[in-house]
Amino acid sequence: MKKVFFTPGPTELYPEVREYIEQALDDNVCSINHRSREFMDIYKFTAGNLKQLMNIPDNYNIFFLSSATECMDRIIQNTVEKRSFHFVNGAFAERFYKTSVELNKEAEKAEAEYGKSFDFDNIRIENDPELICITQNETSTGVAIDTAEIYKIKKKHPESIMAVDIVTSSPFVDLDYDQIDCAFFSVQKGFGLPAGLGVLIVNNRCMEKARYLKSKNVSTGSYHNFISLFENAEKFQTTETPNVLGIYLLGKVCESLNKYGVDKMRNDTLKKSEMLYEFFDGHPFLKPFVSNWSDRSKTIIEINAGSRQTEIKKKLADAGIIVGSGYGKLKDTHIRIANFPMHKKEDVKKIIEILS
Amino acid sequence: MKKVFFTPGPTELYPEVREYIEQALDDNVCSINHRSREFMDIYKFTAGNLKQLMNIPDNYNIFFLSSATECMDRIIQNTVEKRSFHFVNGAFAERFYKTSVELNKEAEKAEAEYGKSFDFDNIRIENDPELICITQNETSTGVAIDTAEIYKIKKKHPESIMAVDIVTSSPFVDLDYDQIDCAFFSVQKGFGLPAGLGVLIVNNRCMEKARYLKSKNVSTGSYHNFISLFENAEKFQTTETPNVLGIYLLGKVCESLNKYGVDKMRNDTLKKSEMLYEFFDGHPFLKPFVSNWSDRSKTIIEINAGSRQTEIKKKLADAGIIVGSGYGKLKDTHIRIANFPMHKKEDVKKIIEILS
Repeated sequence: MKKVFFTPGPTELYPEVREYIEQALDDNVCSINHRSREFMDIYKFTAGNLKQLMNIPDNYNIFFLSSATECMDRIIQNTVEKRSFHFVNGAFAERFYKTSVELNKEAEKAEAEYGKSFDFDNIRIENDPELICITQNETSTGVAIDTAEIYKIKKKHPESIMAVDIVTSSPFVDLDYDQIDCAFFSVQKGFGLPAGLGVLIVNNRCMEKARYLKSKNVSTGSYHNFISLFENAEKFQTTETPNVLGIYLLGKVCESLNKYGVDKMRNDTLKKSEMLYEFFDGHPFLKPFVSNWSDRSKTIIEINAGSRQTEIKKKLADAGIIVGSGYGKLKDTHIRIANFPMHKKEDVKKIIEILS
Repeated sequence: MKKVFFTPGPTELYPEVREYIEQALDDNVCSINHRSREFMDIYKFTAGNLKQLMNIPDNYNIFFLSSATECMDRIIQNTVEKRSFHFVNGAFAERFYKTSVELNKEAEKAEAEYGKSFDFDNIRIENDPELICITQNETSTGVAIDTAEIYKIKKKHPESIMAVDIVTSSPFVDLDYDQIDCAFFSVQKGFGLPAGLGVLIVNNRCMEKARYLKSKNVSTGSYHNFISLFENAEKFQTTETPNVLGIYLLGKVCESLNKYGVDKMRNDTLKKSEMLYEFFDGHPFLKPFVSNWSDRSKTIIEINAGSRQTEIKKKLADAGIIVGSGYGKLKDTHIRIANFPMHKKEDVKKIIEILS
């Protein structure tokens, strides 16, 4: 039986991935030199299609790293001398906070209960952090932060660099990059690609900060410091031999989504999320974990299945539908259903039918 | 016309890569959870086959990173508080040295002319470096270091951790891991795989050093510090979502090479290298760059083509054979011919015929 993965990522591959890989093999994409014109054309193609799809301003840099976790690491190294501030309401926001601690920075955090957003009006960010980190879509709990709240924080703290984790909301999330400084994601979520590529989007303020730290002899890391990344990205190259196939495939998926239309894709996502939330809101025992409607992620639908989690997962698996478990302490009681561009309405309907 | 890549890497893919990728897609390797039993089985399979192929002792850890360059970064972070020492006779050894400098360590180096090995008897390593780095096979110049010299250095400096770059000599090089502490490579060279995966092999001395640094509050990095890598590797997992497809493919190539026989593969490599060196030694104007026979790499054959480099490369390319240029300052005058397990004797003969 053919399986369909509704897991938060790695997840179902974008339908044309096999075809794209075959094309890449035919065209020797995995054998070409990463300093060659052919590679530079791939970099340019991917960055261009990504900027178009996600409406990223021209003056923002696209860096290709190996994972979203690496993005966190490099952001801290390159923008923080002393102090970062973190909004933490789940395991991935906590990972960003922990990264700062592990790199010997003074990291402060505002915490919210898992499954809830923040009481933004009553959170005070003190001591002028150099970096403010927020997880726009918390993959571990299914809470999404209203982007307007993110812009408000940035307006209140214009001197701080604002880094936004959009790991499981991209390419759905409609982010105004001019109101933040930095965002990142990995490709095995909403882009439906094999894991092994992280994408970091940074503006000139981040670059200036990295240069300032370097001038003060604060280490900003080695081959993946922002200055090296920038110098290479300007030439459509990378510092080291990168995941060339991953970059190629990302470009192809972005091109395909651009052809389909970003508004149409967003609309599909909204509709599928409404179908799922409506169904679970009316379900006798499978309840959305995030109770507040406006805090609910449209791309990670988290359901409290209590003691019946294994049974529910099995029922779906028997019909070829693979959903995720909860994360961390919610591992044995929750299920997570991803709602990404490659997830079809018919399969969402199938989930609803099976669990009705 | 079908191309055959004799470039130093990225290079010609291992012949069965397309078939392995198709199998991976059929088996949902790119969609499975990286904490699942399926993924753990892949990790175990790959690490096991790699250990068998390269005769790596059981008590050495295999960590999957994203590139050889990342391996350098993590080795410095996790084994050096103050001081590292580097044998530098090419661009990649220089990269290792520079990594240490960029991470604010005191890095010292012994230099040798490009194209030459070191005058080992007259090099004094002073100030008790915590880490000694040597590039066993310098990809930028085609010089290979006799492993016996590496073991001698280690014997003279038993307190120092010995890290060996085998990026373009693995899996050919027959290294006695008990006489070193750490080695690393990337998969787009001798393993003929798509780029985006680095493999780091470390013993318990490296782990002890990382733990000691952590106890002293020296930052050993975040998600890819040795302690996190080890805790996950023990469970056949990784800290972050890794390049799952890359790990899977590496296992399949190792399995295939194990079936073929490592001695047979080494013998093939030696024979092909002899054919090439013999031919170029007798050539009127295409001369091996490394004059000393015992310093010549068996896997990277570097030829000084002088002003006729472009012409020679074109002549080969017209017959479907793609060779590499020289590296850095040797870019416009040298050619590099890789000699990896997937490179066929018939194609080596073809190179010789074309250039005769």
